[in-house]
Amino acid sequence: MPVLESVPNFSEGRDRVTIEAIGAALAASARVLDVHADADHNRSVFTVVGEPDALVEALFAAVGVAVERIDLRLHEGVHPRIGAADVVPIVPLAPEDFDAAKETARLLGARLAGLGLPVFLYAPPERGPAYYRRGGLAALEARLGAGELAPDFGEELLHPSAGGVIVGARLPLIALNVNLRGEVEIARAVARAVRERDGGLPGVRALGLDLPRAGVVQVSMNIEDWNVSPPHAVVARVAAEAAARGAKVLGSELVGLMPAGAAAAAAGAALRIAGFDASRLLELRLLDDDG
Amino acid sequence: MPVLESVPNFSEGRDRVTIEAIGAALAASARVLDVHADADHNRSVFTVVGEPDALVEALFAAVGVAVERIDLRLHEGVHPRIGAADVVPIVPLAPEDFDAAKETARLLGARLAGLGLPVFLYAPPERGPAYYRRGGLAALEARLGAGELAPDFGEELLHPSAGGVIVGARLPLIALNVNLRGEVEIARAVARAVRERDGGLPGVRALGLDLPRAGVVQVSMNIEDWNVSPPHAVVARVAAEAAARGAKVLGSELVGLMPAGAAAAAAGAALRIAGFDASRLLELRLLDDDG
Repeated sequence: MPVLESVPNFSEGRDRVTIEAIGAALAASARVLDVHADADHNRSVFTVVGEPDALVEALFAAVGVAVERIDLRLHEGVHPRIGAADVVPIVPLAPEDFDAAKETARLLGARLAGLGLPVFLYAPPERGPAYYRRGGLAALEARLGAGELAPDFGEELLHPSAGGVIVGARLPLIALNVNLRGEVEIARAVARAVRERDGGLPGVRALGLDLPRAGVVQVSMNIEDWNVSPPHAVVARVAAEAAARGAKVLGSELVGLMPAGAAAAAAGAALRIAGFDASRLLELRLLDDDG
Repeated sequence: MPVLESVPNFSEGRDRVTIEAIGAALAASARVLDVHADADHNRSVFTVVGEPDALVEALFAAVGVAVERIDLRLHEGVHPRIGAADVVPIVPLAPEDFDAAKETARLLGARLAGLGLPVFLYAPPERGPAYYRRGGLAALEARLGAGELAPDFGEELLHPSAGGVIVGARLPLIALNVNLRGEVEIARAVARAVRERDGGLPGVRALGLDLPRAGVVQVSMNIEDWNVSPPHAVVARVAAEAAARGAKVLGSELVGLMPAGAAAAAAGAALRIAGFDASRLLELRLLDDDG
């Protein structure tokens, strides 16, 4: 059985009790590698791994906790969302496991229907999470009512407090936020300048956000293919676009974990070593049975 | 039994037949992770791992090949050396294995005496390889003749064609060369500016070398503790010192492999992520049983 990763995003980044209850539900059946909670986003992102059956069990339990404990009607946070458990990606750790990830996402989707939610399967690039989140929860409700879109599993309409849930298989991505000192309009302009949709870097999605609790503005990004748009090049571009608008980079934060190859590429840039990759890292070379 | 690393340096970086014969001798008993050969240095550096007995067996065989095939009287190369097999460090992969590395170095030293060589044990910081190489092979011969120093194992005098061999346990280090376009005097001045011995960066040893075959000059460095002097900071300092003297960095090269932590630190600098370390690399987190 392949080991798959999941990076479920929940719409709670402040209440420790809920975040810990979700973590405990995940940990009962899978291995939790990382938790990233942000109060301004009001969102928590877990990185978990397990074999397909265990992963479905863990995610089903965790989404159940989220449905029970999170009320979107009371929710405020800067990150767009349509559900208490907003998006549950299933990620192959090895490229050849993509079909297993797709199958696991479908099994999970069918299972989550039992929680009284509409379940949307995403199929990037056309129907990624942004397709469902566009215009927010009210817009999604209207689109469902108008028959413009229909859930793949479960209820026809949104759950009153927990909304819906987006499930799907995707390749690994890097979620990287760059914090700026400046106005939110600058963060938004930088996001437009760097994201693919507006002619920026290939495979980069970006939003400009205001983070009043942290006292910063943020370019919040997903890098979908780090071979094409390596994170160090993305950060350099954000810094240049920000500087051109008079804003300063305060620092970046990684949401979740980073593939060693992307970190090695960034290290190679800093060290000026052409072609530096993860095969030059001692610990990884030791693991490689082919020596 | 602990798994130990060794990074033996041989005074041949041009003749593929000899380099491959050394590699084959190593591979018969241990696992060869990396080979780095340089024609200007006229030196090859292998990274091998194995349990102590297997490692001693592999290194004994490889030094035997070097003694048989390399004649230092015919040798020319820019890297200082005192032996056909110049230095054979034994490196613990886990800090708690340092005593095992010391014991393995002593066993290896005793074994190498059987090849008709004087064997010098090094004990950094006072008696590192530079202590034995100071002034070159002729100076070492004179110091031996004068009784200024004595081998720890084996012959009292140098082997006519193969010189001596330096063996010892040391902690992991990073061997990193930065190539410059400029005069060799600039590389030497930059080396002096960055190395600890002349008031530069802690734990950094550096030489300025002329590499006529490659058509560059080089600051050739060992970074003994990357937590104290992280490689990206060292490269940045080299670049600044070179720029101040009108020379340009062409690129760097890593000799051997790099601990993931050092690469993560460099990646964190490039990505502007404070505190980024190897625990944020997905592949390494997956390995960590405490995950």
